[in-house]
Amino acid sequence: MKVVKFGGSSLASGNQIEKVFQIVISDPDRKVVVVSAPGKRFPEDQKVTDLLIECAERCLSNQNSQEIAASVIKRYSTIAEELQLPSKIISEIQADLEARLNGDRSNPERFIDRIKASGEDNHAKLVAAFFEEQGVEASYVNPGEAGLLVSAEPGNAQVLPESYERLHSLRERSGLLIFPGFFGFSKEGEVFTFSRSGSDITGSILANGLKADLYENFTDVDAVYSVNPYIVKRPKEIKELTYREMRELSYAGFTVLHDEALVPAFRAGIPVQIKNTNNPAAPGTRIVYERDNTNGPVIGIASDQGFCSIYVSKYLMNREIGFGRKLLSILEEFGLSYEHTPSGIDDISIILRENQFEAEMEQEITGRIVAELHADEVKFEHSLALIMVVGEGMRHNVGTMARASKALARASVNIEMINQGSSEVSMMFGVKEVDEKRAVQALYEEFFAAVTV
Amino acid sequence: MKVVKFGGSSLASGNQIEKVFQIVISDPDRKVVVVSAPGKRFPEDQKVTDLLIECAERCLSNQNSQEIAASVIKRYSTIAEELQLPSKIISEIQADLEARLNGDRSNPERFIDRIKASGEDNHAKLVAAFFEEQGVEASYVNPGEAGLLVSAEPGNAQVLPESYERLHSLRERSGLLIFPGFFGFSKEGEVFTFSRSGSDITGSILANGLKADLYENFTDVDAVYSVNPYIVKRPKEIKELTYREMRELSYAGFTVLHDEALVPAFRAGIPVQIKNTNNPAAPGTRIVYERDNTNGPVIGIASDQGFCSIYVSKYLMNREIGFGRKLLSILEEFGLSYEHTPSGIDDISIILRENQFEAEMEQEITGRIVAELHADEVKFEHSLALIMVVGEGMRHNVGTMARASKALARASVNIEMINQGSSEVSMMFGVKEVDEKRAVQALYEEFFAAVTV
Repeated sequence: MKVVKFGGSSLASGNQIEKVFQIVISDPDRKVVVVSAPGKRFPEDQKVTDLLIECAERCLSNQNSQEIAASVIKRYSTIAEELQLPSKIISEIQADLEARLNGDRSNPERFIDRIKASGEDNHAKLVAAFFEEQGVEASYVNPGEAGLLVSAEPGNAQVLPESYERLHSLRERSGLLIFPGFFGFSKEGEVFTFSRSGSDITGSILANGLKADLYENFTDVDAVYSVNPYIVKRPKEIKELTYREMRELSYAGFTVLHDEALVPAFRAGIPVQIKNTNNPAAPGTRIVYERDNTNGPVIGIASDQGFCSIYVSKYLMNREIGFGRKLLSILEEFGLSYEHTPSGIDDISIILRENQFEAEMEQEITGRIVAELHADEVKFEHSLALIMVVGEGMRHNVGTMARASKALARASVNIEMINQGSSEVSMMFGVKEVDEKRAVQALYEEFFAAVTV
Repeated sequence: MKVVKFGGSSLASGNQIEKVFQIVISDPDRKVVVVSAPGKRFPEDQKVTDLLIECAERCLSNQNSQEIAASVIKRYSTIAEELQLPSKIISEIQADLEARLNGDRSNPERFIDRIKASGEDNHAKLVAAFFEEQGVEASYVNPGEAGLLVSAEPGNAQVLPESYERLHSLRERSGLLIFPGFFGFSKEGEVFTFSRSGSDITGSILANGLKADLYENFTDVDAVYSVNPYIVKRPKEIKELTYREMRELSYAGFTVLHDEALVPAFRAGIPVQIKNTNNPAAPGTRIVYERDNTNGPVIGIASDQGFCSIYVSKYLMNREIGFGRKLLSILEEFGLSYEHTPSGIDDISIILRENQFEAEMEQEITGRIVAELHADEVKFEHSLALIMVVGEGMRHNVGTMARASKALARASVNIEMINQGSSEVSMMFGVKEVDEKRAVQALYEEFFAAVTV
């Protein structure tokens, strides 16, 4: 039995939904279909979720929201026309959206969540209607009725553990189950959404709850690539990688799948298959618990910009019990989360994402570190990029670091920072943002395109 | 003006003290002579400080301490005979030790400190007497009278900042000043010792207080070596290195000079010269603020055993503000100080010195991390060695990491951990203890003995 999730672009038009239908019925193991809200049909198009957010915000600020609500309905009715569905479904969707827009606005965040969730909810109803029209047994499933319970955190709901057992009974239902992604219900029966792109999470939760054999995640790429195609042309596709490898890659810019989405499948040991709705014959990429290491030590190279470091030095820092903890407490008080803390003997650097900083913070933080920890030196460095070289095969492979650092040296890239050791499946290099592209290209060259001379 | 400090082996016998005398009078700039307690004359010999500690402990447990006190006096009287000093000095030393042993024992730690400090104090008196016998103007200086004030921490006293100004007036005194190392006086007038080998600290404090041009530290080696001579035969001597380089090297096993001893000299920018009492013609090693980087990127390689790591992993750890800080707080509650914290995306390792652990701690710590932080995995790894590759020249030298990791790969050494980035003057490699020697040899080969092929 398989749980199959389709992304927004896979469901953006009637034509796309017909492809989805063919994919689903071509494999009788495909039982549960998780549906996103309609996405973009062309690059300049707007996603229904974005329209809904704007609509909700206009309501809250008492601006005119009619026009934008109409354009949401227009998206659904265009699709319904393309699929030659009876107009009843559109009346239903319109009534639902109106009811939500006229609902309680006393808690703005919860109001927004209810509006946002309608994108997936109504699209699941539409898709179910289409499947039924094709003469297939299929039914829309309401997440609340099915038992998908979540925490009452608007825009960041977390699945509650009891959901899994409740959802398991969906196995007993006959026919295809069309399940809206992105949201669940609190114990009090209110709608709360996951973080953005949360339909991936819904699929993973269902795969876990129903103890599926496979979670198929259909998107618009043939596979996960070994490196960013904007940096290296026609990069190698990854056929199989582990959850840990996927997580390390996604940390630094590989955004094929939502980070949190891997957790439920991972905990249940269910493999995840990334596939392309527009090219279902392509094998795609499989995410598994363990894999053979037959293709060299490195499986992928990811990179991300927008980091900065705070360097703190103090003679004999090393002797002070609690120095690091106190330093991290100061950052915590500013609400800053940090990424890494490489340390020397009497110095430590804290690597953070730059977008967390507000204007005055840098000076305030420096002041507090000097005043409270009597540091000799506090120095900010901006515009850093982190590069992750990922692969289970590099565990206990003695030459990988040598090859990586040599490749960077050859490309005249200065390594600002290395973090290796904790994770056995990755090496991390910090470089200046201006060196990022050259560094990634040099590493790809070394591990994927190197020819023995 | 120079402050000159002599170690215990440089003052272990009459013959050695004659060498010291020749060294001191050969340079009229040598004004202040800091004296250690008599050290070992041959490998099986006992240091006077060790005898004194045993003597004090016997007193405290009401055991017979006569014999061991006699052997302390015997060491001084042997030296006095070799130097043909009048017996008066030995009577004085004997009376002093007896008075200390019969002193207040209500605070055992302070009692031990007073006994320990007598080793240096009495030897300074003996050395001063010998200098005077040779017809040189020289006088013993009592640290309390001279104004060397320290905190009231037995065995770990810290200099108080007001000492420096007080000590400065020693410049006005005529003749050579013979100053006992290792201890100072609290504001209440009680004796407190520095940590072990603390005579180095006394010398550095005096160099700072008197604003000396140079602090000469005489010991029993010709120079600081670029690598441990027990691991690599006849290693290169280091002619000049910076304070930071010395500190990084001494962290991992280079014990020529007491760590804390560099601080006062460093703060005053006074160079430190390491020299050999038994070969004063050898140029020795100079520790300076800044140096030319003319001899390649690496100046020395140090290593030390006895480390362990605690590996903690938790899926999406990276998203939790405060995770690292909470983890460090738990270790702090166990009184553990940590060395480094390399981290991956969802995992972190804490590197600690193994000797801090008591039997049950490992299990208790694991239990608390699992219970309080809901970690997925907590794993201890023992018997690790840290290797420091040190050199100011490696800053912004793009190829150094490549050379180092390649050398380790060639020697089939698996790198368990790398920490580079915070300190700009060192790279740290963690390896298994069994690989330590091979790793250091391979790195030395690469950076000091490599022949271009």
